[in-house]
Amino acid sequence: MKKVKKDPISATDFLNDPIEYNKSFSRGIKIVSGGVATLFISGTASLDEKGDTYCPNNFTAQAKRVFANISSLLASKGACWHNVVQTRCYLKYIRRDYRKFNEIRNWFYKKEKLNPYPASVCIGARLCRDELLVEIEAIAILPNRNVRPFKQNNSRNK
Amino acid sequence: MKKVKKDPISATDFLNDPIEYNKSFSRGIKIVSGGVATLFISGTASLDEKGDTYCPNNFTAQAKRVFANISSLLASKGACWHNVVQTRCYLKYIRRDYRKFNEIRNWFYKKEKLNPYPASVCIGARLCRDELLVEIEAIAILPNRNVRPFKQNNSRNK
Amino acid sequence: MKKVKKDPISATDFLNDPIEYNKSFSRGIKIVSGGVATLFISGTASLDEKGDTYCPNNFTAQAKRVFANISSLLASKGACWHNVVQTRCYLKYIRRDYRKFNEIRNWFYKKEKLNPYPASVCIGARLCRDELLVEIEAIAILPNRNVRPFKQNNSRNK
Repeated sequence: MKKVKKDPISATDFLNDPIEYNKSFSRGIKIVSGGVATLFISGTASLDEKGDTYCPNNFTAQAKRVFANISSLLASKGACWHNVVQTRCYLKYIRRDYRKFNEIRNWFYKKEKLNPYPASVCIGARLCRDELLVEIEAIAILPNRNVRPFKQNNSRNK
Repeated sequence: MKKVKKDPISATDFLNDPIEYNKSFSRGIKIVSGGVATLFISGTASLDEKGDTYCPNNFTAQAKRVFANISSLLASKGACWHNVVQTRCYLKYIRRDYRKFNEIRNWFYKKEKLNPYPASVCIGARLCRDELLVEIEAIAILPNRNVRPFKQNNSRNK
Repeated sequence: MKKVKKDPISATDFLNDPIEYNKSFSRGIKIVSGGVATLFISGTASLDEKGDTYCPNNFTAQAKRVFANISSLLASKGACWHNVVQTRCYLKYIRRDYRKFNEIRNWFYKKEKLNPYPASVCIGARLCRDELLVEIEAIAILPNRNVRPFKQNNSRNK
């Protein structure tokens, strides 16, 4: 065996696969090791199921779409935001939009009843399309249900 | 069990928790899997224990504060810089400050007697407050002391 | 035991080690846990074996050199692009170069017969030298050959 299986993550009802517009990356990759599954969610922007930008230049609508898109990618592997350990957030206009981004994130995470919140970083950066205002990547870690849990050593009781 | 425990990382004697100024992320998240603990340290800037910017517009003082803040977050989980496998460094003025950043980083890592140095990336990026000049995120991996180490198979000796 | 072994990654026939120009980071770090080896490949630009910029201001040549440099770092630990689960790509001029970057990436990944493609993010960012146009970091995960594979429980057959 020379590879750890890389399982692609996809949720084409919500956002299309990059291969459809000739981009060679996956929406995410799931790998299993050490009894857990790790989901590497790619940088996810406000795209729709046809690959078009959803709500160009509308920050609030884009941010909500990004959270929904990531939710759909997580759900495709039986995960949800409670499994997210870290996000990286990229804002085109961080000076203008950081406050609004936090309002939306607060609202969304409270709705999802997250506790604790993920680790995170947020920086200003130009994104791959001019009309995109926000992009988020995420790492989620969840138990791998197909792997037997690590056995407790109960030898003293025998 | 549907979740891997996410243990929030906090060091409020050095830098306050983001929730105090209505930001929904943790200073870091610790998870345990495969016999090791992984610490995801959030993007950490030159903040003080009240959430105020420490030394606005003073690059050297800010960089030292960032290293100290991350040290305190690592220490809260029994870790130190020797456990850091990777950093991501964001400089507001990379053209102006990259040389100075490396001088400070060299000084700090030598003081900590790091060998080898972590993997790293350093890019120019706008940060969430205008007066912040440097932000660093880190991943640390350390043995999980509460997990029994994987047993050697000594059956041949029995 | 207080540390998980950090094994530095280096490929000095292709790109020099940062320590040679007084930069305190490693080209990458390998750690082993949970039966797999994880390679954290540092942000890698178009440098040559002497630490000089390879093809200043030539995007295509730089991008190919970056992929080759990362290949050499992976190979130093017995890995290849099939083991890469995630990349982060930084382009100095994302508006100008994103299309060309994808053409080169498509070409390279098809040559390597990657399936599925890695998770990825690509943002615009200033890099540490003015003449660098592209930088990529990567995470690769591969089986650790020195670790005995997790044993199947065949007790029912005994």
